[in-house]
Amino acid sequence: MDGNSLGPLPKSVPTRLSQTVHDEWGAMLIKGWNDAGWMDMPTRLGDRIGAMLGCANGSVVLGDTLSIKVYQALAAALNLNPDRRVVLSDNGNFPSDLYMAQGLLNTLNRGHELRVVDPDKVLEHITSDVAVLMLTHIDYRSGRMHDMMALTKAAQDSGVVVIWDLAHSAGAVPVDMGASGAEFAVGCTYKYLNGGPGAPAFIYVRPDLIDRIDPSLSGWLGHDAPFAFELGYRPAGGIDRMRVGTPPILQMAALDAALDVWEGVSMDELRNNSIALSERFISGVEQHCPTLTLASPRDPQLRGSQVSFQCENGYAVMQALIHHGVIGDFRAPDLIRFGFTPLYLDSGDIDQAVDILARIMRDDLWQDAKFQTRSAVT
Amino acid sequence: MDGNSLGPLPKSVPTRLSQTVHDEWGAMLIKGWNDAGWMDMPTRLGDRIGAMLGCANGSVVLGDTLSIKVYQALAAALNLNPDRRVVLSDNGNFPSDLYMAQGLLNTLNRGHELRVVDPDKVLEHITSDVAVLMLTHIDYRSGRMHDMMALTKAAQDSGVVVIWDLAHSAGAVPVDMGASGAEFAVGCTYKYLNGGPGAPAFIYVRPDLIDRIDPSLSGWLGHDAPFAFELGYRPAGGIDRMRVGTPPILQMAALDAALDVWEGVSMDELRNNSIALSERFISGVEQHCPTLTLASPRDPQLRGSQVSFQCENGYAVMQALIHHGVIGDFRAPDLIRFGFTPLYLDSGDIDQAVDILARIMRDDLWQDAKFQTRSAVT
Repeated sequence: MDGNSLGPLPKSVPTRLSQTVHDEWGAMLIKGWNDAGWMDMPTRLGDRIGAMLGCANGSVVLGDTLSIKVYQALAAALNLNPDRRVVLSDNGNFPSDLYMAQGLLNTLNRGHELRVVDPDKVLEHITSDVAVLMLTHIDYRSGRMHDMMALTKAAQDSGVVVIWDLAHSAGAVPVDMGASGAEFAVGCTYKYLNGGPGAPAFIYVRPDLIDRIDPSLSGWLGHDAPFAFELGYRPAGGIDRMRVGTPPILQMAALDAALDVWEGVSMDELRNNSIALSERFISGVEQHCPTLTLASPRDPQLRGSQVSFQCENGYAVMQALIHHGVIGDFRAPDLIRFGFTPLYLDSGDIDQAVDILARIMRDDLWQDAKFQTRSAVT
Repeated sequence: MDGNSLGPLPKSVPTRLSQTVHDEWGAMLIKGWNDAGWMDMPTRLGDRIGAMLGCANGSVVLGDTLSIKVYQALAAALNLNPDRRVVLSDNGNFPSDLYMAQGLLNTLNRGHELRVVDPDKVLEHITSDVAVLMLTHIDYRSGRMHDMMALTKAAQDSGVVVIWDLAHSAGAVPVDMGASGAEFAVGCTYKYLNGGPGAPAFIYVRPDLIDRIDPSLSGWLGHDAPFAFELGYRPAGGIDRMRVGTPPILQMAALDAALDVWEGVSMDELRNNSIALSERFISGVEQHCPTLTLASPRDPQLRGSQVSFQCENGYAVMQALIHHGVIGDFRAPDLIRFGFTPLYLDSGDIDQAVDILARIMRDDLWQDAKFQTRSAVT
């Protein structure tokens, strides 16, 4: 139940990765860039993911990490709104997004302000001095989900450029970037899309804007003619200009195979099943674990595909859960977090997880000394 | 003979990758971050590569792509020299390095100038208005090698901060970053280090400077306490602050296995063997292919581990070579390029390559229509 942190290994991945290693890298060497289609993977996979998120073909590209894609999107967004100086975000945003914004604003050194407000106060802070609204659609801790349509509309009515981080949305809830009208989106592929540890990130740019973007991270593979080796940067036409350096082919191959799982999946059906699983989990936990408090919105329409409970000694409780075969996450200071992904979880799994959690709480199994020491990664 | 573009598949890689996929991602899921040591791989591999390049332990970290690492190094270098406005480089630098510099200087928008001179004119352009000298040690086209020691010393005598790109040096020629005194180095790991297509890049920061660096790309994993999820960025102590986002674990595992090959290798011995192979190739080609002109320095001390020949119709000639089993690169406008890596090439391979090239030139085999169409990647 940690698909919201790192999706499990899809069955097709090992075979595909072995092919890429032996038949492509091993046998083709540099010929793989053309003959195995390596060079086109970032846009080909971009289209596959874009199709799940309501993005037009040719408006999404893969590469780098989500933090890098946040930097690219924010730098481009600020350039589209050069006369304003405020970046508006909320304290439910993933910290790395805020850190990258801080680094970019320091680098720019032009008096920009990062204004971070409570999630429920975002709407009232969309004012005419705001250049960019940058939000994560679904809160990584509580699963609270912003109203993408309403906030995007309010922002654009005030002349604000919008960036959505879809880290916890892609593969979890229906998203329609095209209908939202937002200028940018970014996201990762190792959570609900099961791309594996360190899978590449993606960036979406609204098609009518792409050719106006002057990339801050203007790398070789975003050049109009990478193999002409010109000394001056000329951005590629279209979404290719958001590419930077050499794509990580092994990670891309794993992700490509993982995406096969999604062929023919209806996001609406998946969403309904995910809500059914999470509702079942919430009522089970509330019935059997009276000391735990729901930290996610009770209305399933207001949360993503994850549920968190406030839990004193949450770190130790999660360690005990993992020890007993239920893998979720702990998020400081006191949240235990679970993801609900109907592609590989069913109601039997949910009932079993509730049983184990109930036993850990009832019998104080989390008090075992071995669950108290914190590891580097929580 | 394209180890200077993409090193071949080391035998140990497939097994290691399969372990990482099955035993770590598949079986441990998020526990892999601690239990399989995923989170420490960027610094652990950094130390392994650093040891080959004369870098102190704890001064090198892996991640992202070389272009991103160039951006980080240059942004940090400019901050160390805030009163000067010139970035000096040469037209033998890899274009992506120049592109990234252009993107950064545009982003800064503070009147910086990128001054690009001929490689043999660098020394005389090291003047007191230069903030940063940013060079690639070995020219990607000709293999010409800069005198790292002399140029670094001249730069530092003029108060210039120095960045070396070691893309064609790491694993190819002896390098001693510590002895050079240079502030920064960056490089990739998919060429002579055989890390595979899209293997991560590295960055070195001179140990006495690391804690003065204010990272421009200030991501989650460069934070002092990533799992505290604070809203404000506080850089990690030491080289960790040059990390940005989630590391690409599959690529790192492949690289880790590839680095095993280097245990016990003497760089001086390797260099001597590499020179012997390249000298043998040059004299063979000059004897049997009179229309080809050496485009690399004739003195082996002045070139890296690669040799290029000027060749009319070079693209078609290289396609014919590849077709006949000799894989090298073509670099526009008219260079055919070969890498010499004694770890997996011997004099028999060299003689065979000369024979095949001689036959292609003598019998005009390159004129075949199928060798004329250019692919996207050359």
